[in-house]
Amino acid sequence: MRIVLASASPRRKELLGQIGMEAEIHPSSVEENITASGPEETVMGLSRLKAEAVAAETEGRDVLVIGADTVVWADGRILGKPGSEKEAEDMIRMLSGNTHQVYTGVTLIFRSAEGTEKRTSFAERTDVTVYPMEEDEIREYARSGEPMDKAGAYGIQGRFAAYVQKIRGDYSNVVGLPVGRLFQEIKGLVGRQKK
Amino acid sequence: MRIVLASASPRRKELLGQIGMEAEIHPSSVEENITASGPEETVMGLSRLKAEAVAAETEGRDVLVIGADTVVWADGRILGKPGSEKEAEDMIRMLSGNTHQVYTGVTLIFRSAEGTEKRTSFAERTDVTVYPMEEDEIREYARSGEPMDKAGAYGIQGRFAAYVQKIRGDYSNVVGLPVGRLFQEIKGLVGRQKK
Repeated sequence: MRIVLASASPRRKELLGQIGMEAEIHPSSVEENITASGPEETVMGLSRLKAEAVAAETEGRDVLVIGADTVVWADGRILGKPGSEKEAEDMIRMLSGNTHQVYTGVTLIFRSAEGTEKRTSFAERTDVTVYPMEEDEIREYARSGEPMDKAGAYGIQGRFAAYVQKIRGDYSNVVGLPVGRLFQEIKGLVGRQKK
Repeated sequence: MRIVLASASPRRKELLGQIGMEAEIHPSSVEENITASGPEETVMGLSRLKAEAVAAETEGRDVLVIGADTVVWADGRILGKPGSEKEAEDMIRMLSGNTHQVYTGVTLIFRSAEGTEKRTSFAERTDVTVYPMEEDEIREYARSGEPMDKAGAYGIQGRFAAYVQKIRGDYSNVVGLPVGRLFQEIKGLVGRQKK
């Protein structure tokens, strides 16, 4: 089975590789500007758009397309990727000393060898509790370069781990793809023997 | 400040590197056969023995020695590293479909530039919930080579991530060193300016 990842994120490709799934990268050109009612609807909606766009451009059978989108939810609003170091600093200040939510939405579209198509979408939530950070730690981290391509302006798999007190949920979900749930959903969709 | 890690674990060295701390590796020759009353006492006791042994062999001042020990606690007993593939299989079967605890004990011994010595020990707990695994998944994973050098016979940072439903606590604690708590404790012991 071919696996096509509708995302340019090297972290998502790495997470798939970690559980033994080699994926082709095929970023979608979907505009990330859905503003659905809540974070779960937003990430599921965007993951669906990405997966559908890439599935339409993908030839052949026995192929699984994976679309994913991740946001941080804090103080009642969605935090995407920061547009500037100033914005990164503001985001990190919001997260410092608090618990926030990370939502990743995933859509799977599977075209079987027989030509039938099956699809499913889900959203996974992880709570992340951050230690209170000192002002110079916030500023230093915001300027480290690490926040700029990441939803919520931090990478739990990077230096920010020093400030994470605990999580509740799937860790890989915070990195960008909930591989535990994903693996279970793929088994359900594709069947045990095909994975 | 020099940082000396009293552990041969490449994963612990990597976790320190992730938060920007470069450590020298200096494994201790402590026998890992303490049988204290519970998992917290066991890992704290072993981390203390390791840190003390290495601190005694380490010259110089302005040096921090870190000792650490990790065990898995399931069904009322401690799981260390498996001695064989059969034992790995038995351990994984115990974890499948259940929640278990991972405990890492850490001891810090800091000798300042002035020659004073400070020390602290703590244990960090993370709950890990594993999806129900099929028999062939258990056998396949036990034979993959991944379990053999790991407490509880799995690596959450490896293929086993596919079977992890959720955790509650610090993820890096499950890998072998709770870098969030560790960073806070080092700030407390060494002082903000020295880290």
